[in-house]
Amino acid sequence: MDASIRDKVAVIGVGCTKFGDLFDQNLADLMVEAATAACADAGVGLDELNAAWLGTFSPGMNGGKATITLADALRFHGRPITRVENYCATGTDAFRNAVMAVASGQVKMALVLGAEKLKDRPVRGLQREGIHPLLEYGTTAPGMFALAANRYMNTYGVKRESLAKVAVKNHAAGALNPKAHFQMKVTEEQVLKAPLIAYPFGLFDCCPTTDGAAAAIICSAETARALGKPLITVKGMGLAVRTGKPFLDPTCDYRGFPATQEASAQAYKAAGIKNPVEEISFAEVHDCFTWTELTNTEDLGFCKAGEGPRFVEEGHSTIGGKLPVNPSGGLKSFGHPVGATGVRMVYEIVTQLREQAGPRQVKNARIGLAHNLGGPGAVSCVLLLGRDT
Amino acid sequence: MDASIRDKVAVIGVGCTKFGDLFDQNLADLMVEAATAACADAGVGLDELNAAWLGTFSPGMNGGKATITLADALRFHGRPITRVENYCATGTDAFRNAVMAVASGQVKMALVLGAEKLKDRPVRGLQREGIHPLLEYGTTAPGMFALAANRYMNTYGVKRESLAKVAVKNHAAGALNPKAHFQMKVTEEQVLKAPLIAYPFGLFDCCPTTDGAAAAIICSAETARALGKPLITVKGMGLAVRTGKPFLDPTCDYRGFPATQEASAQAYKAAGIKNPVEEISFAEVHDCFTWTELTNTEDLGFCKAGEGPRFVEEGHSTIGGKLPVNPSGGLKSFGHPVGATGVRMVYEIVTQLREQAGPRQVKNARIGLAHNLGGPGAVSCVLLLGRDT
Repeated sequence: MDASIRDKVAVIGVGCTKFGDLFDQNLADLMVEAATAACADAGVGLDELNAAWLGTFSPGMNGGKATITLADALRFHGRPITRVENYCATGTDAFRNAVMAVASGQVKMALVLGAEKLKDRPVRGLQREGIHPLLEYGTTAPGMFALAANRYMNTYGVKRESLAKVAVKNHAAGALNPKAHFQMKVTEEQVLKAPLIAYPFGLFDCCPTTDGAAAAIICSAETARALGKPLITVKGMGLAVRTGKPFLDPTCDYRGFPATQEASAQAYKAAGIKNPVEEISFAEVHDCFTWTELTNTEDLGFCKAGEGPRFVEEGHSTIGGKLPVNPSGGLKSFGHPVGATGVRMVYEIVTQLREQAGPRQVKNARIGLAHNLGGPGAVSCVLLLGRDT
Repeated sequence: MDASIRDKVAVIGVGCTKFGDLFDQNLADLMVEAATAACADAGVGLDELNAAWLGTFSPGMNGGKATITLADALRFHGRPITRVENYCATGTDAFRNAVMAVASGQVKMALVLGAEKLKDRPVRGLQREGIHPLLEYGTTAPGMFALAANRYMNTYGVKRESLAKVAVKNHAAGALNPKAHFQMKVTEEQVLKAPLIAYPFGLFDCCPTTDGAAAAIICSAETARALGKPLITVKGMGLAVRTGKPFLDPTCDYRGFPATQEASAQAYKAAGIKNPVEEISFAEVHDCFTWTELTNTEDLGFCKAGEGPRFVEEGHSTIGGKLPVNPSGGLKSFGHPVGATGVRMVYEIVTQLREQAGPRQVKNARIGLAHNLGGPGAVSCVLLLGRDT
């Protein structure tokens, strides 16, 4: 991944549904709401889009159909639609592929749509995905991440109180966000006394199971300029896959995720970023669990290894801090419909860069970072977006 | 999709496993065999590849894991791997996305890998995919295509004998191909007297359920030239999605598939092809059922609507004919491991363009076409590859 992508591709429109338990909307309904909002925001019609990328991890409704569901829901017929799936990095990787297609000159204007329906699914959930606990080493996502968190906490002498501070911070941000799944503050005491899921994670250390969709319209920077749009461009991108068997990976010491370190190195190189904490204005990072945000801030180079807890404790990652992390509320509070999350992060970054984020607005937002981590921990995708002037 | 892609991206290596009932190989084994064969063919090491695209429809083994299975099987760690899924067009669409990434300058050398394990799956097959007949309008793929075939046959006065000629032709080609699932000739009488699956399709009108994988190594044409490789480049690509509810689509009269017409129009425009039957040397088309090949030859512009039966009856699509169709043996005889098929077609086209196809070699092979149809009938992807001089 080299610097040739920088500033070539612009985001001219974004849209996002309310995230939550959306029992009255199916996958197609969510797609329509997010895509039409993005088109309205861009000031272009659906018929002006030349191709689409759909990020969805598990399109359970409609018998597992993905690209056809998009085609029928949006009457997006006769045009290319690609489905990308890459665990929890599905949304950012769909965006990444669309950006390269636009940069290649093959596609003039593209829709990137992330959508996921995790509630009221027609076929038995986890078993349908082949990730039923009884099939997969007896583990679940909370169990896997808890193993890593315990190792980390033991190594650095970290207590559950430090993890709880992430939940308090992200719920406080989510309380300011009308689209968040949970618009409620929590106290450190509430987090610590919540029912335990998998030690050290209590209920409020875990992101919820959420329905939602988000969309972005992208085109070349020249096209964006010709349309008179404020220029928000892709500065860099990175994607890395590590092993799904971390016990066998000598480079994985459970104190961080090499995939995130590698993906962010690719993105920083492309964007010409030398000092992330100085040059990045804010970040949306993959806080599937509170501990994950701590280790993410280290892997992304916002602080040194083992300093993630102090980074949040000293308030550096609050909306008013030196590098706000998850001003949207994060997965923790905004919710995590798998394939939608990465595109939802793009929505938040564009909203912040335009200074349209209202009470959760980050000051002097110039460069925003989106980060997904999936697999669990094996796949990471990092995007950097920035605004001109 | 414009002409700017033409001759920018080259295929420098291809590999393919034997297709068949591969009970002694899991998904990872198939990936390793195809990818290492493609690397050996290209004369590059796996460590020289910058990114990968994986086409797999339903990665059932290993709990549904896709990109991580590739990363671990090939030790392809720390680099981007994207999974593309687009029904039976999964393989060609994975190739298409990789080509755009190389054309964008973001990726120097890429692996495209199509792999599918349809036998000995750990979770109940169709039900796991959410396409169990009881969930999906009571239909199966043979049932859906049989409806369309009946309408076509009634409209044009076509008999089962015409369909049988496709099976005879493709089995004759497959009998010459050591990698084909079925290396056996069949007679028209055998085809007509085989057990009926869904009228008008008997057993030999249907492609088999197959395991297999295929891979291609791609890079820019400049890189290929610098490596001293014979120049086989991408001339054009197309992808189109139509409705998954054809009864509601006024443009679908069941006598052809609009998705194929649209995808091929995109590819022909990009490649500058005006007269397909004169300019294309041979084609690998999606003969999931014998009738499908007949209608494909019409949708791709090889003959007029309703003339598909005559096209095969007059021998135009045999290996020695004016436009050989499925010299590999096709899905019918080579087999159809869903995500692998499109990349397997690229393997066949490159092998033919290099004149390395042995007894099934097409004469004067200059431009080859690959065509997938999925969804069923809703998604089509078309690729055009050609050799210089």
